[in-house]
Amino acid sequence: MKDSLGNRCVVVARRPRGVPTVEDFELRPAPPPGAGVSADVLYVSVDPYLRGRLSGRHVSGPIAPGDPMDSELVVRTTQDSVVGPAGTVARAFGPWQERVHLPDAALVPVAADLDPPSLALGVVGMPGLTAYAGVQRILHPVPGETAVVSAAAGPVGATVGQLCKAAGARVIGIAGSAEKRAWLVDEAGFDGCIDRHGSVRDGLGALCPDGVDMYFDNVGGAVLHAVMERLAPNARVALCGLMEQYNQEAAPPGPNPGLIIRARATVKGLVVYDHEDLRPAMEEDIGGRVRQGALAFREEVFEGLVQAPDAFCRLMAGQTFGKTVVRIAHN
Amino acid sequence: MKDSLGNRCVVVARRPRGVPTVEDFELRPAPPPGAGVSADVLYVSVDPYLRGRLSGRHVSGPIAPGDPMDSELVVRTTQDSVVGPAGTVARAFGPWQERVHLPDAALVPVAADLDPPSLALGVVGMPGLTAYAGVQRILHPVPGETAVVSAAAGPVGATVGQLCKAAGARVIGIAGSAEKRAWLVDEAGFDGCIDRHGSVRDGLGALCPDGVDMYFDNVGGAVLHAVMERLAPNARVALCGLMEQYNQEAAPPGPNPGLIIRARATVKGLVVYDHEDLRPAMEEDIGGRVRQGALAFREEVFEGLVQAPDAFCRLMAGQTFGKTVVRIAHN
Repeated sequence: MKDSLGNRCVVVARRPRGVPTVEDFELRPAPPPGAGVSADVLYVSVDPYLRGRLSGRHVSGPIAPGDPMDSELVVRTTQDSVVGPAGTVARAFGPWQERVHLPDAALVPVAADLDPPSLALGVVGMPGLTAYAGVQRILHPVPGETAVVSAAAGPVGATVGQLCKAAGARVIGIAGSAEKRAWLVDEAGFDGCIDRHGSVRDGLGALCPDGVDMYFDNVGGAVLHAVMERLAPNARVALCGLMEQYNQEAAPPGPNPGLIIRARATVKGLVVYDHEDLRPAMEEDIGGRVRQGALAFREEVFEGLVQAPDAFCRLMAGQTFGKTVVRIAHN
Repeated sequence: MKDSLGNRCVVVARRPRGVPTVEDFELRPAPPPGAGVSADVLYVSVDPYLRGRLSGRHVSGPIAPGDPMDSELVVRTTQDSVVGPAGTVARAFGPWQERVHLPDAALVPVAADLDPPSLALGVVGMPGLTAYAGVQRILHPVPGETAVVSAAAGPVGATVGQLCKAAGARVIGIAGSAEKRAWLVDEAGFDGCIDRHGSVRDGLGALCPDGVDMYFDNVGGAVLHAVMERLAPNARVALCGLMEQYNQEAAPPGPNPGLIIRARATVKGLVVYDHEDLRPAMEEDIGGRVRQGALAFREEVFEGLVQAPDAFCRLMAGQTFGKTVVRIAHN
């Protein structure tokens, strides 16, 4: 036992209402280990889509009260396995625990030079693949066109923006804090940024005078509405996330379909699981940019499994900056 | 003067509120003829998009009180012109009058064997091109898949359905009267039909148990919402018309964007003016089917310019069946 407290697990105590609170979760002793490769959890991925699962309305399935929270993890094996000798770093979906047993087939090795390995949960992981697929398969950036991205400081949004920028587009972000907006312009190379809590419509009018050719939406709600009103002819819109409605009990209506007709826009739903075939290309492209220092990213790292519920609650309140992960110490 | 009453013109008397009434229009003496080729109007096209123009919110521009109504016409020239000697039948955009003067460049000849020539305003005209472009460029029918079309008995909807059927798809219509639904199944070869005024959701559940792979929307509103809830994975949706909201003062909201994400759907706005390049192929394809008796269509023909306002009001109340035209007698 490396951990004097025993192996613990984050369990859903009750279904959250609105923005989740830490009382919606409990730290409990982990269930007895099952079969599989034993591993120490290094990082737990904390993602907005989990809120949809807690409401029972996400494509990847529900998480109900009494269930363990689960998401993608970065682990270090403590015995030999298909991914290599004990000590190999891998990613896998699994419960929010300090130590796990996982089927061999669930483990995917993480490149040894990926530093920190939590990037396999962030810009070189599922969020990076989401961004890459959206840009490659939906946005199709053209030099000189204008791209807008919401939740722009998150790992998906910031990567979408930088990939569009690299393709020659003008890139405008929408983000909820001055610190995020400054980082997007100063570090991530965005051409401008709009305050999500201000008038998004006025911001778009000022920064996108010729309309929005590409929009990558992570939030839905009023922000989506404002951008749809400003679409340029033949705009492409990737619908990916619904941050504004994840905390709501019922799904609100969307923008009037006349906005899509008027712009002759193409609006497409993006679910990252459909795009696993792009992962090798994404890892080469985005991994390469990261290793060259050519892609800006941020991580918000919470320390210890006990912080995991708070990490999730802060993420869902818009209070985290960059990819949210929980680091599990193993001394 | 062929007409003892003189040349008359339909003018907008006031901006309609809700469903238009004949009091919103006036028959007035036509203004003095301008330059151009003189022609007798044979048919006036009466189309739902005109309601959007009367509200000032259609891509093809507003029609304000005091303006003449205008739309596409089929005319017979009364003097020689670029389209041929006097007596040539042509189509052109122009005012709702009995006789018109039109610029040479506005005239497009109508195939001499098109019988009746009003088809150049219907299934072998703009509505046919709308249907053809939607099927070719957005729906991409696959044998065995299920297509749904609203306002299915109209010239766009009935043609969309028959083109999808010819491509091997199952086709389900949504229409507002028992007579229309019977015609769609018995004459147009649809596999089933749903009452627009009943529970569209229940109808879709019964007739589209595996979901909707393709949807061609002519109406928006609650019908669009119900279909979006039932989209199959990778569905394609053509947004074309907004019949349910043309009569409303303000644009209502649309379906929740989560429905598009969940289905990984591709939703695209269709404006027929963008697809003129397809017109020769459409005329060959649909014109050929019409000449072979292989495409069912209906026309609702009103007699005389004096009936034109009533024709439009009935169209906008869902009381017409098939392509609505006004025939102008010239004895």
